[in-house]
Amino acid sequence: MAKKDLRIGLVGVGFMGRTHTNGYKRVSDFFPDLQTRPVLKAVCSRTAATVNAFAEQWGYETVETDWKALIARNDIDAVDICTPNNMHAEIAIAAAEAGKMILCEKPLSRTLEEGRQMVAAIEKAGVNNTVWYNYRRLPAVTLAKQIVDSGKLGRIFHYRANFLQDWTINANVPQGGQGTWRLDVDAAGSGVTGDLLAHCIDTAIWLNGSITDVSAVTETFIKERVHQATGAMQKVGIDDACIFHCHFDNGSLGLFESTRYARGHKALYTFEINGEHASMRWDLHDLNKLEYFDHRDESIVRGWRTIHVTDGDQPYMDKWWVPGLSIGYEHSFVHQVADFLKSLETGEPCSPTFKEALETQRVCEAVLDSAAARSWKNINAY
Amino acid sequence: MAKKDLRIGLVGVGFMGRTHTNGYKRVSDFFPDLQTRPVLKAVCSRTAATVNAFAEQWGYETVETDWKALIARNDIDAVDICTPNNMHAEIAIAAAEAGKMILCEKPLSRTLEEGRQMVAAIEKAGVNNTVWYNYRRLPAVTLAKQIVDSGKLGRIFHYRANFLQDWTINANVPQGGQGTWRLDVDAAGSGVTGDLLAHCIDTAIWLNGSITDVSAVTETFIKERVHQATGAMQKVGIDDACIFHCHFDNGSLGLFESTRYARGHKALYTFEINGEHASMRWDLHDLNKLEYFDHRDESIVRGWRTIHVTDGDQPYMDKWWVPGLSIGYEHSFVHQVADFLKSLETGEPCSPTFKEALETQRVCEAVLDSAAARSWKNINAY
Amino acid sequence: MAKKDLRIGLVGVGFMGRTHTNGYKRVSDFFPDLQTRPVLKAVCSRTAATVNAFAEQWGYETVETDWKALIARNDIDAVDICTPNNMHAEIAIAAAEAGKMILCEKPLSRTLEEGRQMVAAIEKAGVNNTVWYNYRRLPAVTLAKQIVDSGKLGRIFHYRANFLQDWTINANVPQGGQGTWRLDVDAAGSGVTGDLLAHCIDTAIWLNGSITDVSAVTETFIKERVHQATGAMQKVGIDDACIFHCHFDNGSLGLFESTRYARGHKALYTFEINGEHASMRWDLHDLNKLEYFDHRDESIVRGWRTIHVTDGDQPYMDKWWVPGLSIGYEHSFVHQVADFLKSLETGEPCSPTFKEALETQRVCEAVLDSAAARSWKNINAY
Amino acid sequence: MAKKDLRIGLVGVGFMGRTHTNGYKRVSDFFPDLQTRPVLKAVCSRTAATVNAFAEQWGYETVETDWKALIARNDIDAVDICTPNNMHAEIAIAAAEAGKMILCEKPLSRTLEEGRQMVAAIEKAGVNNTVWYNYRRLPAVTLAKQIVDSGKLGRIFHYRANFLQDWTINANVPQGGQGTWRLDVDAAGSGVTGDLLAHCIDTAIWLNGSITDVSAVTETFIKERVHQATGAMQKVGIDDACIFHCHFDNGSLGLFESTRYARGHKALYTFEINGEHASMRWDLHDLNKLEYFDHRDESIVRGWRTIHVTDGDQPYMDKWWVPGLSIGYEHSFVHQVADFLKSLETGEPCSPTFKEALETQRVCEAVLDSAAARSWKNINAY
Repeated sequence: MAKKDLRIGLVGVGFMGRTHTNGYKRVSDFFPDLQTRPVLKAVCSRTAATVNAFAEQWGYETVETDWKALIARNDIDAVDICTPNNMHAEIAIAAAEAGKMILCEKPLSRTLEEGRQMVAAIEKAGVNNTVWYNYRRLPAVTLAKQIVDSGKLGRIFHYRANFLQDWTINANVPQGGQGTWRLDVDAAGSGVTGDLLAHCIDTAIWLNGSITDVSAVTETFIKERVHQATGAMQKVGIDDACIFHCHFDNGSLGLFESTRYARGHKALYTFEINGEHASMRWDLHDLNKLEYFDHRDESIVRGWRTIHVTDGDQPYMDKWWVPGLSIGYEHSFVHQVADFLKSLETGEPCSPTFKEALETQRVCEAVLDSAAARSWKNINAY
Repeated sequence: MAKKDLRIGLVGVGFMGRTHTNGYKRVSDFFPDLQTRPVLKAVCSRTAATVNAFAEQWGYETVETDWKALIARNDIDAVDICTPNNMHAEIAIAAAEAGKMILCEKPLSRTLEEGRQMVAAIEKAGVNNTVWYNYRRLPAVTLAKQIVDSGKLGRIFHYRANFLQDWTINANVPQGGQGTWRLDVDAAGSGVTGDLLAHCIDTAIWLNGSITDVSAVTETFIKERVHQATGAMQKVGIDDACIFHCHFDNGSLGLFESTRYARGHKALYTFEINGEHASMRWDLHDLNKLEYFDHRDESIVRGWRTIHVTDGDQPYMDKWWVPGLSIGYEHSFVHQVADFLKSLETGEPCSPTFKEALETQRVCEAVLDSAAARSWKNINAY
Repeated sequence: MAKKDLRIGLVGVGFMGRTHTNGYKRVSDFFPDLQTRPVLKAVCSRTAATVNAFAEQWGYETVETDWKALIARNDIDAVDICTPNNMHAEIAIAAAEAGKMILCEKPLSRTLEEGRQMVAAIEKAGVNNTVWYNYRRLPAVTLAKQIVDSGKLGRIFHYRANFLQDWTINANVPQGGQGTWRLDVDAAGSGVTGDLLAHCIDTAIWLNGSITDVSAVTETFIKERVHQATGAMQKVGIDDACIFHCHFDNGSLGLFESTRYARGHKALYTFEINGEHASMRWDLHDLNKLEYFDHRDESIVRGWRTIHVTDGDQPYMDKWWVPGLSIGYEHSFVHQVADFLKSLETGEPCSPTFKEALETQRVCEAVLDSAAARSWKNINAY
Repeated sequence: MAKKDLRIGLVGVGFMGRTHTNGYKRVSDFFPDLQTRPVLKAVCSRTAATVNAFAEQWGYETVETDWKALIARNDIDAVDICTPNNMHAEIAIAAAEAGKMILCEKPLSRTLEEGRQMVAAIEKAGVNNTVWYNYRRLPAVTLAKQIVDSGKLGRIFHYRANFLQDWTINANVPQGGQGTWRLDVDAAGSGVTGDLLAHCIDTAIWLNGSITDVSAVTETFIKERVHQATGAMQKVGIDDACIFHCHFDNGSLGLFESTRYARGHKALYTFEINGEHASMRWDLHDLNKLEYFDHRDESIVRGWRTIHVTDGDQPYMDKWWVPGLSIGYEHSFVHQVADFLKSLETGEPCSPTFKEALETQRVCEAVLDSAAARSWKNINAY
């Protein structure tokens, strides 16, 4: 039985352009039961040489240098947005209006207001959509969700997460342009809050429910950096670090921290959840493992269990190799493609949708406001 | 050459009474160069049977059931206060007025005001004094201090610490009385803030300098518990959990968390400090190790180093066994006794003194106020 | 500039058929500078339905059910042998005689004699060849080789490795047939020795040079299992476990162990090498990390370093994501494809060649003989 | 009720003299229910200044410089032998003939023949005795024994242990004399076999039963060292490294390795036992933890458990602090003293007795013979 094609139009050829494309190219090999297969129909980037090279390397059939032209094409079913954050809203809204499905890289938007407009456009258009909060789909993280849903943890007391990096400690790292637009507030909207904490918040809400209020602090350790567009030193507008504590709707306390100034940590995303009966913790640097503690174990042999999530009865792992053999970061994107394709068959949304991702934007906005105002902010006000 | 005696009068026979006594009994065996030796002259507790049994087990020469009688004795050189927190101030002030040296269990006091009175009394009396923030003197922690002082870390960006326990999750744990006075706000002053975060704050100030402002949240998860004194359910007045972020005077951000509701963690005190060039982290559950990352290492072989702090050139370890052989929690108290005795010889204070420990009280008070007021508090105001 | 095609004919559609195919399909995406690209021209397996399904899923252009027919085709440049071990020799020799390049799954052969015939055929034909000892090409393992070659370790004293699994503890696991031919001595030649220790030996020789003599013990814990071909209980002919110690030519001692009866270990391949100045160890369950200890580090901060091998200046990692983001097991095969394609450009062999892999066969044969004879065996006699 | 005195006469004032003395001095503080208390009656060493200083530091009442004089005294109940190994037999036999209880440091003897004479003397005299294989009495190791005895593991397949050090890599380390007599074959009898593997073998037999045959290899990496007694370079007679595999009587395979040339390992004693249902492993560098894997756990949350052995229901830990607070190496000796004193009350032997420790000597002798002969040795022949 022939598979149905889903013709992809990718906008943006940076790091995320590569991870998404790899997801599309691998999904049919490893998820053979899917009835839909992605087709790399077109890729778009402003510079012809760049986009041509990308298309050549990855096998896109055609190229565009204007995203509006890409959206206007009739042979594109789904638009995948991998641009810097400042382009998300405009492209997504236009794509929705054109009736395209949309897969948007996280964070949804620079601001809550942009995000609201995007959700409105999506809902009006009624198109399939998802936001690439890919870490949900690492098997150990998905397993954590299954354990939460099983009720094994009991009443939750604490949730904590951090995302620590160290790549901007060097004052010579510029802002703006390829690779470093994440340091340019106009392009990124915010610093670690939108880039890294957004991941932590998305997972947290998924695992532990709504956040109700936040109290935050941010810091910009290096105040000026050269901007690649101008070649001049300019004030740095992003947050280099952000910490906040919060309440969840279930009564638990939350604690979040992110920075790009934690020497020794390349991409250390960790979370931990403490329940009455059991706790779990996870770490992106050892991503195939989930640690689990169950107080109901016999007392003399009770301890934190290191679950090596590579067995066929654990999430997604029946698709890959054999027990004990690890997969990597990139597989989270393959899984999100698979789940998106599956959602087209079932009619169920592919979480997080734009609407669900807006919840993370609300928290991010409240966090940045809280830091600026040095006061608690209630999420209901957002 | 005969050693000089330091005649100890211990007040309190609980957990800390045991750890301190063990410190006094072992110090001469392992620190033979000290010119002073502790003598277990007297121990005091209200109940005769209890104090007699303790004296018998540990070898105290005499007993008292009234601490005022102990202080009045001429054959006591130093008073060691191991009572619940609500007795610290009164005993310390009386002991100072009696000209006794004082070794006071942490936290210094229930409140900042009590602490100020204690410091005033000590300074007026001019007696030797120290507060048992014992974790400073675990070899790995002392090594961390040496590394900070060496300048290896460079500019500091982040300091974070937590102290996680799980022993009060059971609602049947009572408040008040032996072993559980830490849940009774009258006896303890506060919950995890004074009991656990005080340790974290003391280490932090020692390693990273002054804290300038704080923003905190506290929570009491179980609102009522039986009080052992009355047998009745009573409102719980302590903080079960406390989180705060802060600025340090050196411009770094701080993050602190403590709880007794983190299932799976028995006594997990951890800290981490991130500098421009190097970072360190430590964990009480594996207390002989210090983790260290130095960015100046050759890039392809750069990584977190696990330093097993058991060599003779590492702090205190020339006194114990041979490389690779671990010591434990209790040794921190032996080291503090050794350093106190040494301070009598050198005339240098034995840190933290009452005055230094008051700095921790200022932060604790600001933290509790911040949580109550849901606002930032400036430490200068305390 | 158009790439040159390398038309692959794959024989065997099991686990290794999948890993190799994935290697071919991904290499051009991630190694864009290669001038040759694999083309999935044909796949062969005895059962038409099976091979058709595999071709459909993975995108092979054509199928064969007779490997001789595959070898006879003019549109195949390279034959990849992924069959059970008992077919390796016959297919490889025929393919060599047909002038095909050969990529053969490890172990090279069931017996040393078979291996010798294969090497003779390859050398007579002068065709490019390689054996899939894929673990060499995990970045952390390749980094270990670079460190050895740098001379950082000094004189070597010890090499130890083990490969522990637990999947055959259940007596109901059958022998013979799909998935369990590894328990059938006719199909596999040996048990853990050829399947698992062969990996350990290959890495060891690569990192530490020749093995000169061995003393081994083997065990078959479960003596009879149902054979899938006959449905009857049959004597188990393979080794369930094998341990040996040995001397290396450089004077160091070696220690090797493998078993499928180590409860709790799914695929725990570890090695460690101890030199005069430095040591290293590695573990397949945390495959992106290499542990390194250098005695020349300053003594008070000396310790085992955990190197997270994900930076662009570490082997292969410039091809993948960004620092801190892990890759997995399967990437070792992509790397071997890349290195094989590169070898076609440079004219250098792609290690291990058949001839190099024969060295591992010599050790395996001596190990099995030593265990049978309960005596040391000198590798020179093989 | 007054305790009964056990008057100790210690022979030897080196490292073990310190650990044993500390055991005697602490036991009554922490094991208050014992009806017997050790009294430090006399200590003996050949050099008056040395023994006087030791007695002064540790509080021995009297000194001797001739061990025969010590044994002749009527005020000594028990003789503790902490000399180099070459004195064990003569002192133990004389002490037994004098009717003294004997506590002998491990290994029991240099040779099996010496050991046999010691056991004969002990049995003839009928005196209480024990050998200081202290690691049995670290709580995590004792817990491992309880788990074995519970039957949780099922049929055992594998036992492996190693003891890795690196302190003799430097060729300037001399042999003979204080601290380095362990490198002098006349004083020590053997190298790592008697010093380190003896510990591993003792634990192994205790946990897994008798060893039936062995195949070993030894190596002396540095062939000549200065002897402290002569100042001259002399041939090194000990084994620097020893590896052996073996069968246990229960059908499992054993694997043992020890060396003093494993750069980066100070005193890394580890063992692991793999059973049909469950496995355990332990590591002296993190001595308060035991790792445990139970295959009967629910599959999706199954993993290695890290048991932090610090709770009151775990072996010995009701005597110490509170959950989460670690003890150290030295506590194993306190526990052995406690168990010896208890054995005096119950009349049960304090394992390992001389007779039990002789079993370890049989294995050591067979191991050394096997290495010399390059052949398997059957323990029954010893």
